[in-house]
Amino acid sequence: VSGRIGLLTLARDLKRRKARERQGLFVAEGLRTVEALLASPLRVRGVLVCDTLDRTPRGGELLSAINSRGLELVRVSEADFDSAADTEQPQGVLAVAEQPERRLDALTLGADARLLVLDGIQDPGNVGTLLRSAAALGAVASIVLPGTVDPWNAKVVRSAVGHQFRHPPVAATLSELGAFLEAQGCALWGAAAEGAPLGQAPVPVRLAIAVGNEGNGLSDELRAACHELVSIPMAANAESLNVAVAAGILLHVLRPAH
Amino acid sequence: VSGRIGLLTLARDLKRRKARERQGLFVAEGLRTVEALLASPLRVRGVLVCDTLDRTPRGGELLSAINSRGLELVRVSEADFDSAADTEQPQGVLAVAEQPERRLDALTLGADARLLVLDGIQDPGNVGTLLRSAAALGAVASIVLPGTVDPWNAKVVRSAVGHQFRHPPVAATLSELGAFLEAQGCALWGAAAEGAPLGQAPVPVRLAIAVGNEGNGLSDELRAACHELVSIPMAANAESLNVAVAAGILLHVLRPAH
Repeated sequence: VSGRIGLLTLARDLKRRKARERQGLFVAEGLRTVEALLASPLRVRGVLVCDTLDRTPRGGELLSAINSRGLELVRVSEADFDSAADTEQPQGVLAVAEQPERRLDALTLGADARLLVLDGIQDPGNVGTLLRSAAALGAVASIVLPGTVDPWNAKVVRSAVGHQFRHPPVAATLSELGAFLEAQGCALWGAAAEGAPLGQAPVPVRLAIAVGNEGNGLSDELRAACHELVSIPMAANAESLNVAVAAGILLHVLRPAH
Repeated sequence: VSGRIGLLTLARDLKRRKARERQGLFVAEGLRTVEALLASPLRVRGVLVCDTLDRTPRGGELLSAINSRGLELVRVSEADFDSAADTEQPQGVLAVAEQPERRLDALTLGADARLLVLDGIQDPGNVGTLLRSAAALGAVASIVLPGTVDPWNAKVVRSAVGHQFRHPPVAATLSELGAFLEAQGCALWGAAAEGAPLGQAPVPVRLAIAVGNEGNGLSDELRAACHELVSIPMAANAESLNVAVAAGILLHVLRPAH
């Protein structure tokens, strides 16, 4: 990146998934997310700001931190800034950074590792909250299967409030995941309304927990690959839980024995 | 309401909390939410549609259902419709309905009742997901304390995907809540990072579970009123869980013995 036009054009371009994938870059928007990015090991390519950022003391502190780190800082008009931002209320700051490369075959599983598997999750807010929950509840990684929204979408990054910078999502196909889990001796359980109520089957030592699409649940292929389908006990007449809430309950209840 | 101008003007007006409170009405937007509303016992005042709704078979079915119920149906231009809608992608349909009146002193608690208490939750999506979780996980009611976003905001209604029509939120002050819980012999536990890890204290028979503001947690007043503060075990370096995920875990783990 070089100069005003470069960073602004790049940020606008990175609204498209194809551009993010081709360049291996993503955009972090808003005060809290950019603060978390600067505190993470990820490489920042540049920061775009507009005058909105100067209006709060916290914005001023962030500006000082950006300057003292010697990062490329480009100031644009509010209109130009808004044309590059993808989330609501980005508070006058966004940063372009490199996606950490994290591949399934580079993952090391501890004795009692937990993984979260995202199968066709469509809502960026849900994906962000899932990554946040997986990180906070001790999963080693989150595996993102095809059909799931891009985990480096700015709305996902915003919802994960920095958790994915230290707990990066790993993209894989179902057959890659299946081979990996088998090689690692790791069981795969899926969340499904018709599954056995949580608490019946003994919990495997190494476990991957899969959650599916907001409307349709797990795909047939994933369902077939699961060693066990489990459900969360619910009230009579209740339709369903939000997928991130369901995953949080499963990650907590199925955590390693302590 | 009477006629095109009446319902359109009313829907626009109901974007404001004060108007919703004064009139005791709210707006449900989008196919799934309006379908859930029609399946609920709530009274519908009228439905506003634009041509977008006709473009899907599901939209056509909903139109038939509205007509066969004899509900007031007003068709407006897409531009007028958009001026009345408050959420993204309302799919060409919104309904104006009456807020069910539900007061704390009219609540009946069963032997092992659970309540959820919302203390200063700011994000409408979080409030909607909290109401959905409370309903799905068997809480009798959700108590909404001052400082929380209006639970009849269209974005909340959308996120709750119909659950709040059968599990209506109850507005109360902290002192009203305190008096009610004492009279009912119901304990109050609060979620707080510094609380005792979940699983230590014996679970009371009747229990209200409080969760606090996304940034600041529980208010000092609520904290002081709690019989117990509890925390969810987390990974080292983890910052926090989303408030709706935390509430889901607490409602599940602290459910009545079965």
